[in-house]
Amino acid sequence: MKKRQLGPCVTFFPQPATLVATLDQQGQTNLMMASWAGIVSKTPPTMAVSLHQSRKTFENISETGVFSINMVPASLAAEADFCGIASGQKMDKAATLGLHFENSAQGVPLLAESPLSVECRFERFVELGDYRLVLGEILDIHVDEAALREDGSLDVEVFDPLVYLGGVKEYWSLGSKQADAYRAGLQFAK
Amino acid sequence: MKKRQLGPCVTFFPQPATLVATLDQQGQTNLMMASWAGIVSKTPPTMAVSLHQSRKTFENISETGVFSINMVPASLAAEADFCGIASGQKMDKAATLGLHFENSAQGVPLLAESPLSVECRFERFVELGDYRLVLGEILDIHVDEAALREDGSLDVEVFDPLVYLGGVKEYWSLGSKQADAYRAGLQFAK
Repeated sequence: MKKRQLGPCVTFFPQPATLVATLDQQGQTNLMMASWAGIVSKTPPTMAVSLHQSRKTFENISETGVFSINMVPASLAAEADFCGIASGQKMDKAATLGLHFENSAQGVPLLAESPLSVECRFERFVELGDYRLVLGEILDIHVDEAALREDGSLDVEVFDPLVYLGGVKEYWSLGSKQADAYRAGLQFAK
Repeated sequence: MKKRQLGPCVTFFPQPATLVATLDQQGQTNLMMASWAGIVSKTPPTMAVSLHQSRKTFENISETGVFSINMVPASLAAEADFCGIASGQKMDKAATLGLHFENSAQGVPLLAESPLSVECRFERFVELGDYRLVLGEILDIHVDEAALREDGSLDVEVFDPLVYLGGVKEYWSLGSKQADAYRAGLQFAK
């Protein structure tokens, strides 16, 4: 196929739409939209999220050492977008949006309206120009009971995760299952 | 909502399905499926991908210092899955699958069948247990001409990107646009 070169920009997708929940030293929670987030290691279980160093979320993680990464359901696309636009330096975004927090047993704020929350303890930063890649040890994963089938497997349609497409600045939902991993490829192994 | 704790596992989604293209010192190309991949910084433009240290891809990047991250279209779900199952230590995966490479002007192999290839120069590793987070400077982004509208904007439906859902081990397509970023959230700013 014929390709055009766009230069060294930041166009790639899909990425997960997530809300990062943090606490400041006074116990005030904050919520920030982040799509440069994902699991990056199994041993040990590690979550990564990249933040601009000017963000309140970066300050909070530095000070209190905990955070959670919360999957955004497609129904909360506009709310998540607001959390990417507004700054937590000036307002309580969750209160403005009518969103709520539940604390984990270890005191980490989890977004009550998210069907999948990853509870993390701050591990270290990696400097990337104006950004900081935050690495966190995954302490626990909290999932909506309604998304668990009787056999313990997860029903993706209940999660309805929101996908962020950087480069085009659009949020999309998932469509349909295309294949099973570790199975579909076996046809080429003969 | 009522939540269940799954423990410190690696369940989060969506993540992008990507194929990492590399070269060894003899100029032999390799292709590996990776979904722990994404852009992590704008200044400078930086791509990250996490690899198990035993992978041929890790060895190749260490030795030749370049790689590309190629978006997988939904039509290549089974081929991408095979690239996650098979090892490049033992076979030429692209040849087995009938996939092809085009070299960039700087000699970096790009997957010809991918509508969006991110060309990278290896920057550094971050150790994460058995994994290595590979950080690469984005040299250029190559996109399918057919996905560019006359005004230069990108038509997501032409890309048809494949989404990987770890935890459930499923590949999904995108559904429909839910909202525009930096616009949908403005309704709460009043």
